[in-house]
This record gives sequence, C-alpha cells and structure tokens, in this order.
Amino acid sequence: MTTTTPPLTRIFSSDNTAGASPEIVEAVARAAAGPALPYGADDITAGVRRRLGEIFEREVDLLVVSTGSAANALSLAALTPPWGSVLCHRDSHVNNDECGAPEFYTGGAKLVPLGGRDAKIDPAELRAAVRHKAGDVHSVEPSVVSVTQATETGAVLTLDELGTLGAITGEAGLRLHMDGARFAGAVAALGRTPAELSWRAGVDLLSFGATKNGTMTADAIVVFDRSLTPELAFRAKRAGQLAAKTRFHAAQLDAYLTDGLWLRNAARANAMAARLTEGLKAIPDVGLLGATDANIVFCRLPEQVTQALLAEGYAFYHDRWEPGVVRFVTSFATRDADIDDLLGAVARHLAG
Amino acid sequence: MTTTTPPLTRIFSSDNTAGASPEIVEAVARAAAGPALPYGADDITAGVRRRLGEIFEREVDLLVVSTGSAANALSLAALTPPWGSVLCHRDSHVNNDECGAPEFYTGGAKLVPLGGRDAKIDPAELRAAVRHKAGDVHSVEPSVVSVTQATETGAVLTLDELGTLGAITGEAGLRLHMDGARFAGAVAALGRTPAELSWRAGVDLLSFGATKNGTMTADAIVVFDRSLTPELAFRAKRAGQLAAKTRFHAAQLDAYLTDGLWLRNAARANAMAARLTEGLKAIPDVGLLGATDANIVFCRLPEQVTQALLAEGYAFYHDRWEPGVVRFVTSFATRDADIDDLLGAVARHLAG
Amino acid sequence: MTTTTPPLTRIFSSDNTAGASPEIVEAVARAAAGPALPYGADDITAGVRRRLGEIFEREVDLLVVSTGSAANALSLAALTPPWGSVLCHRDSHVNNDECGAPEFYTGGAKLVPLGGRDAKIDPAELRAAVRHKAGDVHSVEPSVVSVTQATETGAVLTLDELGTLGAITGEAGLRLHMDGARFAGAVAALGRTPAELSWRAGVDLLSFGATKNGTMTADAIVVFDRSLTPELAFRAKRAGQLAAKTRFHAAQLDAYLTDGLWLRNAARANAMAARLTEGLKAIPDVGLLGATDANIVFCRLPEQVTQALLAEGYAFYHDRWEPGVVRFVTSFATRDADIDDLLGAVARHLAG
Amino acid sequence: MTTTTPPLTRIFSSDNTAGASPEIVEAVARAAAGPALPYGADDITAGVRRRLGEIFEREVDLLVVSTGSAANALSLAALTPPWGSVLCHRDSHVNNDECGAPEFYTGGAKLVPLGGRDAKIDPAELRAAVRHKAGDVHSVEPSVVSVTQATETGAVLTLDELGTLGAITGEAGLRLHMDGARFAGAVAALGRTPAELSWRAGVDLLSFGATKNGTMTADAIVVFDRSLTPELAFRAKRAGQLAAKTRFHAAQLDAYLTDGLWLRNAARANAMAARLTEGLKAIPDVGLLGATDANIVFCRLPEQVTQALLAEGYAFYHDRWEPGVVRFVTSFATRDADIDDLLGAVARHLAG
Repeated sequence: MTTTTPPLTRIFSSDNTAGASPEIVEAVARAAAGPALPYGADDITAGVRRRLGEIFEREVDLLVVSTGSAANALSLAALTPPWGSVLCHRDSHVNNDECGAPEFYTGGAKLVPLGGRDAKIDPAELRAAVRHKAGDVHSVEPSVVSVTQATETGAVLTLDELGTLGAITGEAGLRLHMDGARFAGAVAALGRTPAELSWRAGVDLLSFGATKNGTMTADAIVVFDRSLTPELAFRAKRAGQLAAKTRFHAAQLDAYLTDGLWLRNAARANAMAARLTEGLKAIPDVGLLGATDANIVFCRLPEQVTQALLAEGYAFYHDRWEPGVVRFVTSFATRDADIDDLLGAVARHLAG
Repeated sequence: MTTTTPPLTRIFSSDNTAGASPEIVEAVARAAAGPALPYGADDITAGVRRRLGEIFEREVDLLVVSTGSAANALSLAALTPPWGSVLCHRDSHVNNDECGAPEFYTGGAKLVPLGGRDAKIDPAELRAAVRHKAGDVHSVEPSVVSVTQATETGAVLTLDELGTLGAITGEAGLRLHMDGARFAGAVAALGRTPAELSWRAGVDLLSFGATKNGTMTADAIVVFDRSLTPELAFRAKRAGQLAAKTRFHAAQLDAYLTDGLWLRNAARANAMAARLTEGLKAIPDVGLLGATDANIVFCRLPEQVTQALLAEGYAFYHDRWEPGVVRFVTSFATRDADIDDLLGAVARHLAG
Repeated sequence: MTTTTPPLTRIFSSDNTAGASPEIVEAVARAAAGPALPYGADDITAGVRRRLGEIFEREVDLLVVSTGSAANALSLAALTPPWGSVLCHRDSHVNNDECGAPEFYTGGAKLVPLGGRDAKIDPAELRAAVRHKAGDVHSVEPSVVSVTQATETGAVLTLDELGTLGAITGEAGLRLHMDGARFAGAVAALGRTPAELSWRAGVDLLSFGATKNGTMTADAIVVFDRSLTPELAFRAKRAGQLAAKTRFHAAQLDAYLTDGLWLRNAARANAMAARLTEGLKAIPDVGLLGATDANIVFCRLPEQVTQALLAEGYAFYHDRWEPGVVRFVTSFATRDADIDDLLGAVARHLAG
Repeated sequence: MTTTTPPLTRIFSSDNTAGASPEIVEAVARAAAGPALPYGADDITAGVRRRLGEIFEREVDLLVVSTGSAANALSLAALTPPWGSVLCHRDSHVNNDECGAPEFYTGGAKLVPLGGRDAKIDPAELRAAVRHKAGDVHSVEPSVVSVTQATETGAVLTLDELGTLGAITGEAGLRLHMDGARFAGAVAALGRTPAELSWRAGVDLLSFGATKNGTMTADAIVVFDRSLTPELAFRAKRAGQLAAKTRFHAAQLDAYLTDGLWLRNAARANAMAARLTEGLKAIPDVGLLGATDANIVFCRLPEQVTQALLAEGYAFYHDRWEPGVVRFVTSFATRDADIDDLLGAVARHLAG
C-alpha cells in the first residue's frame, strides 16, 4: 500500500517501526552457532521459561510465538469455547486490528465490544456483560474477559482498576486474558511488580509483547493457568506457530529479559512520550487528549499543521479517531533529538 | 519432552537442528539498525520479491511466513473450499506432521491420502482420485493436489514425474500446491531450473522452504497465481502470520537467495547424504533403502547397532516406518567429519 | 429451563409457539404415502421451486432447511469469506439470537452491529460501514449486509427504505442478504410484490421464513444469485441440513405457498396485532412503543400489571429491552378471543 | 441430478426412499393442534426423553436433530477437540458420505480411516491407532472412536465384537461414539437389549437413527455421558439444529418409540432382506457377498442383468465397491411382493 518511504527518524506511526536492541541482535548471532534441539526443546527456550518464572515470582509455562496477534488469538482460543464470547473494549486490538484472528482461532467465538474511557473497560458495563444471557443457548456464552495493558490509547490500568475488572471476571466464573503488547510499558509506568499486574490480579494467560519493545520476531504467552499448557501446545502447532528453530525466537526473549533490558527499553519509550507531552504542552493551540501513561500521545492539531508535517516526511496516524486528532507513538529507539525535531516542526508550522 | 541433550554433532534426526548460515546472521544484524516500515512494506521484503522473480524467471508475489506449516496450510486454504479435498501422499508432511494445520486453516477440508513409492503420489491413484465423486454433494469435492519436493523419504520428483502429476491435476481442473520444504535440495539434485520445477509444471503456490536449509525463522509462499495474493494476505494476517517487523524474516531470505547461497547449502546437504550412502554401502550388513536423491538416508540396522548408536549420543529416528529401519538426515551444516564419525561408529558396532 | 407450562391460549411470547395450518398437516400426511427419491430429488421439492419462481416472478433456486438459523447462517456463509464482515443491525436475530451460528458457518467472519430506529439499519451508518477499512488486511473486509424484514421490533422496511439500503450495498460492491423470518408479514403489510421486496431491491439470498407462519419444521433459502447454488448445496450437506426425506419439509412449503395460504396466515397475524394495538390504545396508562406494522407489539406496562398477567399464566417477554417494556407477539393461530381476553386482563389489572 | 423418477416400488437404492409409518403421521397431525412451548421445552419432547430412559434402562438426555449427519457431527464435535482424531472405519458414513460434516462441526479434527471386514473396525488396527503418536503435538491426538451399528454393509457388530472395540477405546482413555443410523435393525437382528448394545459397552453418545426406519425428519442423539448435554445444546443451536417447533420432530420419535414400532419396523426391513437373500441363493449364478444381518444385501450380478434391471426401472447402487457388485436395501415399507417381483426379474434376466 505504502509506496514512498518517509525519512525514517520521523516515523511516529507505531513502535513496531523500530529495529532491535543490540543485545538482542548479539544473542541471535550467538544462538546461530551449532545445532540445537528443535521445537522449543533447546536450552535457550528452557532458560527463558526460568527467567519468566523469576520475573513473575512463580512457576509459569511459556509459549513462544512469532506475532502478538498469534499470542492473543491462541490465548483466547484456550479460554473460550466456540460458542462463547470474549468481552473486550470496543477499541481493543483484538476487536479491531487482527482481521478476525480471534474468531478464526476460537472457531467462531464472538467478540462483545464494551465501552469505557481511555480504552479501559468500564466496570459497570463489564458487570452487566459477564451475566448477559449466561446459560441461554440462544446466545453466545460469556466466557473470557480480555483487557489490554497498556491500552490502545496509551493509558495504563492501575492496580485498582485491574483488580476491579479481575474481581468482576472471577466472581462470574469467567477467565481473564491480558493483551500485554505493551506490558513492559505498563510495568515501567506503574512501578508495580509483574506479578501484581498479572496473575495476582487473576490473569490466566498473558500475551507478553516484546516485538514493539526491542525484539525482532518474538512474542510469548506467559501461562499462569498451567493446566492450559498442553492445549496451547497443540493449538500452536496446528496454527503454524511452533517454529522448528524456536531457539532463534527464544534467544531474542532471553536477551530481552536479561539485566532488565525489557524495562529499560520501556522506560525509554515512556520517557520519550513524556518529553513529547511536556513539549506539546508548552506550545499554544495544541490540545492534548487523554492520559499519556506509556508511549502513546494523542493531541489535536490544526489540519494545515498535520498536512505540513506529513509533507516533511513525518509519519503518524491522524483523523482515525475523530477529525483533527493525531497520534504519535514513541519507542525504545526514539532519541531525544527525534522528539525535539518533531516539537520544533509542530511549533514552526503552528507559527507559520 | 526431551530431557537430555545429545552431543550436538551427532544429531541426524532432522535438518532443522542446524543453526543458520553466517551470511544470514549478518543480514539480520544489518537489518536491525534503524527504523523501517512494518508489515512487509519495507525495502528488504520488496527486494526478496524481486530476487524470487529473477530466480523463477517471471513476476511472482511473496508471502513471508514464520514456519513451513504455515506456508503449507495457508496455501491449501487458498486452493480449496472448506468442502473440498486435498489429494496428497499418505506419507506427506501435511497429512501426518502438522497436527491438522491444513484442516484448521481450510475450515475443515479433508486430506485424502494416496499411495505411491518413495512418498511420490502414484499417477494412477491420482487419476482416479481427481474425479472421485466430483460434483456429488455427499462427498468432499476434489480441489487441490499437494506434492512434496523433495519427498519425505528424500526422493525427488523428476521433471517427467512432476509433469505427469501436474497434467492430471490440470486436466481435471484442480489446483496444484507444492510443499517445497526441501525445494532447494531438489533443484540442486536435479539440475533443473526453479521455473521448470514449479510454475512451468503447473504449480499455483509453492511453499518455499528455507528454515531447514540455512535460515532461522523464515519461510515463504511463492505465489504464481497472483490472483490469490489478496486472499493470502488476509488469511495470513488472520492467522497471526503477518509479522510487524517482517524485515527480520525478509533479511534472512534475502541473504539466502543472494549469490546462490540457497543452492550451495542444499548441494552440501545432498553431498553429505551421498557421502553417508557411499560409506554405508561399503559396510556389510547395512541395507540401504529407497532413493537418496536429496539429504535423507534410510537404511536397515540391526537392533543392537541402533541401540549402541543411541547410547553414544547419536540422535535419529528409528522403527517408525518399519522395525529395523533408521533414518539419517544431513544438513548444510553437516561436516565431512560428522559423517565419517557416524560411519565409523556404525562399522564399529556392527563388528562388535 | 421452563418448568411449568402456561395455559396455552395465553402464550404471546413468540409466533413460534403456534401449531401448524391444517392444509400443511394434510400435505404432510399425503406425502407420507409411498416412496420418493431422497435428498430433494423428489417431485414435491421440484414443485416448491416452481411455485417460488411464480411468486417471485423469475427463476429461482431453492434450498430447503429445517430452521431459520440455518437459512441465515448458510446464506451468510455463501456471501462472505471468513475474513469478511457482516453488517447488520445491533438488534438483529443473526447478531443476538443464534448463538454465533453465522460465525460458525462462515468460518469466523465478524458481525458488525449498526444502529437505527425500529431495528432498521441507519443508512448513514451503513454508508460509513461499507467502506470502513476496506482492503486493509488488519481489519475484516466489509462483505455482506444483512437486513431483517419485518424487523425484530415488528416494523417493516418500506420499499424506499429497502431501496436505499440496497443501493448503498450495491454501490460499494457488497452482497445483500435478507432475513425474512417474517417476510410474509412484511409482504402482507406493505402490499408490495415479493419481487419488489427482494431481488428487485438487490437481495442476493433470502431466508424465507415459514415456521413462524404456519409450517412445522420447514424454512427455505430463496436463491436469486443462482451462481451460489452449488456452493450452498455443499455447505448445506456439510452442515447436516440436507434431509434424506426432504419431501416432508417440501410438502409443508408446498401447502404454505398454495392458494395464498402464506399471505392469509400473515395477514391474520398482522390483524391480531392491530386488534391488540387498537385495544391497548383505548386503555389509559398503557404506552405503546414503536411501529406495529406486522405481528409484534411493544408497550409499557406498570410492573404490577406485568406480574399479575404472568401470575394468570400469560407468557410474554418483559424487561429485556428496558424496564417496564413488554412485548406481545401474535400469530396466524391467534384468535380474536385470545386478544380480547388479553385486553380484558390488562384493563382489569390496571384498574385493580 | 436424477431426472426421471423410477417406478417407486422398485427403489432398492436406500431405506431413505420410504415414506413414514402411519402411526407417525398421525402423531404429527395430533401435535399440530394448538400452541406449545418452543425449542424442546414442550411436553412431547419431555415424553420422548422418558421413553428413551425406559428403553435404555437408565436416565439419558436427548437431543432432537433433523438429520443423521447432524447427529453424527454434533456427537463427534462434543467428543474430540479440534486437534483430535476420530478413528473410524474407512467405509463409514462419517468418513465418506457427509461431505466433511464431522470436520466442519469439530473445527477441523481429522478422521483416521481404519480397515476391517464387513465395515467393522479391525481390533488390531484400532489397538495401534488409539496410541499412535498420542501426546505428540506434531500429530492429531487420538480422541474418539466411532463405530457404526449396523455397518454400512449391513453387518451387525455382535455383543462380543462391540465389547472388544469398547474395551480398547476405554482402556486408552478415548471416547466412544456409535453411528446408529440403523441401530434398530441391529437390536432387532441381535436380540440384545438397547442398553447392552450401547452404554453398557461404553458408548458415550449414540446417533439414534429413525429416519431410515419410519420417521420423516427426526433423528436424535441419545446422551449417556450427561455431562456433555450443555455443550451439545449450545452446539446444536449454533449449528441451526434447534428447531423452534421441536415438538413436530419429537412427535415422530414419540410414535416411533411407542408400542415397539421402531423394532417392528426394523424387524420387517430385516425380514425383507432375508427373503431377498434366500431367494437369491436359490438362483444359480448370483453370488451373495458378506453378511446380511440387517437390511442390506450385496451380491454379484452379470452386467447385462444389472442393465436389464435398471432398464425396467429398478433403482439400486452398483459398481461402486467393485465391478459387478450391486447393493439392494430394504425398508420397513418393503412388501413381500416387491421382493418377489425383484427376484423374478433377476431370474428372468439371468435366464434370458
């Protein structure tokens, strides 16, 4: 679809345009030397599982996958029958941006979109939805709640907010999935432990995003309800998600989790968004919107400013939410200078 | 499942235990520097498509995927309706080793297993099967033929054999898929052009294997019937096979296709299998079985020899086809010394 | 779920509680004598197809099915790929009351709920939805619009309203499905021809409801786009919808279509709803809601009246849409006296 | 497909060409009078469940469906995960004659065809298959065994044979499904109780065929493992198999089960096949094949006899199994004279 490539330091369309952390590149190179057992039976994959156990302060199982969409769709398939429903925010990635991957993997379960500010599910809506027509064969059966952390608008669920949603879910007997495509960003922003922000709040399966935050092609499902592991393994193979040379995905995750790289990367992305937010606040006539807890910034810009930025090669989404609203996303690879250049350009075009 | 790791130079269980070619590692490292457009809109992916066009002597489309199972299942889903059948050899990978991935991706199409020597579909059986109950709503509709090149037993379809199967398929109005997990090995063995061995013989979609022959996590579908490209793109996204940072898979394929690396790697794997075959022939009491066109060697070993090899740390499959039959698989990374050590061990245990 | 059976003349919960028209019972009895070809190759089924051709003023194909849910789900499966979306009203039966049958039959397509008064799709919302992210592989592809005639609230789409929705659909290149579970009621109410209300407005496939209006176990898909017939036949068999003794469903449809029985039955159900509406208007403190074009009446009743009616054995849905709102459905079998008794009971309890 | 209708007393192609028993017609007519609760909440459906409990000597649950294909596919879907396999005879109806309905309903499980005489699964093959690659994620997981009673060739599984297959299934931890499309014929032929021939032998779900033996449009699943009932109810609704006016299917089953009609009908069909067998034995040059335990007769006829019978309007399948082999199926509606006429024609054409 895209035909001309913008100057690459001006891409703020998504955190998936960044490269990979040097530590991760080196780990992949190291993993390439010599043979290893296939299909995840290698030592590197075993090491990642151990590291995740330490990070989450309990034994977990691990499913290495090649995309976040696969992590989400596999998780949901293990948590709902085909006749079930997935309760999620109407702006969630699983609902809008995966071309029906959850419907495909689950065998046709239904995503029930709920409202709420900052792309967080409204607890009152959830409370109604978890019981809506439960046990009625004429309707899909409420089966799993999927929350996103951080949300699609860059907000983070606080421990309280997550606890509330988790409690509603658990009391109704439903399962809890977390789309953690930007889980690292939420941990970095909240100063809470990974355990508090996942299984202690009732999360059964966590899509543990890494690609947006430093890896190349590796994401993972962290399995807290380990009774689901065999089913997930069969489903992953059948979905073409069991890589013969899993070690090359695992090596990325291993480096990502070593010495806190994952949190340092996330903290940098968050800091760059904060720098952008502060800068935009200082410019008159730029309306900031919503919370900037993690690495996504929404604001209102005059149409001619948006067009001028695009003409200069800046890449970002605009006018998808409402007219005049633009979205900038930072990443672990964003430099101070990139932000400062962007701020300068916004100020210049507003003045012009 | 596996608990102890064998000495790694003694793994002959599969070509997927090898690492990656140094050129490929370097290409991945280069690709990591700086941002790029996501989802395959990057320049590296565009370059791979061009290279494939040159290699196959016509314009092709390209779908980058993370596993061979995904390449096969996506291809078959684009070539059969859910009520169709996939005609394939009873020993084929799609039929036996993908946990029903084709059934999942196609929405429940049926794999109809056919016989034939050396895991090649018997033309007479195919001729009957392509017309079996065609148009009868009580039965699945013959829709696509899937051939494997090289086959699961390491034989290669000659140009004549492929032409015969292609003609039967085409005349009956069915589509033709090729599982080319070891396509490079077949090209290297036959001395025929990639074009002759694919679209010129009627192949609509080719699963272009690379992982077993030098890449890390990258396989591809080469699309000859380009009217299928939009459907494949939707299906791939929906299957979790559209990587945000596609460039990291593409970089592997790019290096793989540069300066003939893919054929050099395959030629080496084939040569190592030939060395093993020659060596085994020289040992009395070892019965070689079937053709060794590519990189797979089947032979009969006495039970105590098999056990002795396993005890020494050799890894290989045995007794899966019939009692006493073992399979050795070589790869681009197999060294002369690895073969010679194995031959020495076989001779020693036979003598012992 | 229900444990005690109410007095059966007091069931206003749905038109599916009625028995069957005597003409239909007789036709079934006649069909039982002697053998016939199975799977719809019998003469009665052929006759139904001819009758439908006369009624719709053009050649049509016919698929006999056993439920309206099957008619809808099969139709939608033939009109959208698995990665497509079905644009429908948020209150539609396909969206709410079929336990995900459309998702199951389509292989996981997504139902996109739209708003609009009286359960009619709002044209402006439809205009936006048919183009929403079209061609974007990250999102499901707008593929088919499903309208309900008469709607779930008993309103009917006028010829103009239907024409508008059909034009938006056609201009965007999407397909049009009509859930005609109460199509007869709409034809009877509007005084327009079946042709005008279906294919002339762009309908590709019509779920031709009969069970709610006089048959026992027979519904049908009327196929206007006859290129879809072979696919529908395979899908129906595969879905367990091809009855060996199709003649017994067909005999019901044959009698239903003979001598205008289908329209007489619908006219009676409509007249009973009109009688109820008139009667309720005459009772102070009963608030009528929405249009009563066909055989469904919504009104507001005080809670104690609702409870008193239930206590007397009246069966109807209440408090599902909003607190205080009740729904009464009439049928071809409703008698004047049944309506008058109900009106008397409402008046009595309101007075009490 | 068929264009001209043969003289209907000469149809021996299938038992599904017969009409319906008079008692069943009368029951349907009785059920049509007056309203009833929909979706199986009616009294007639409850009565059928009680009758089945008496017949099977234990409490059972009941799912009323409109075709045998639906009964089979729903049952299998409840007994295997999508990544599982269904072990069945290679000649079984589920494998050959349902256009992939089991694959559709199960979400893509694999049917693994096994051999054995008289379309009965060979115990040795089953013993190997139940353990084949169990627990290996690369392969589908053996999950359910489906046996047919009576088999597709008209043989019946003796109590011993069934017990053997049931024991192998149970010991391996798999589930057992019985396709009882002709269960009545088997009970009539064996003189064993329905309980002995089903749940006492380990059957979890029984497709209880009725359409071939006297009903019009009604078959059923008899649920012995009642923990599966809720899942089956959701699956049935979602598959378009929950009829609004279930009473009309249930009325057929009720009459079918009353006063032993089901066994009388089956006994008649069996007797007619026996009469045909005896008659054919008396004709030189007719080679009978296989067991005729129930209502299916296989024999060899010279080609010119087959053609002469067809020319006279006899309808039957021929040359589908091997050249020269024809199949005659009798039913509850077959009369002595029909058999005698057929025997006369065979003798006449052989003599001619």
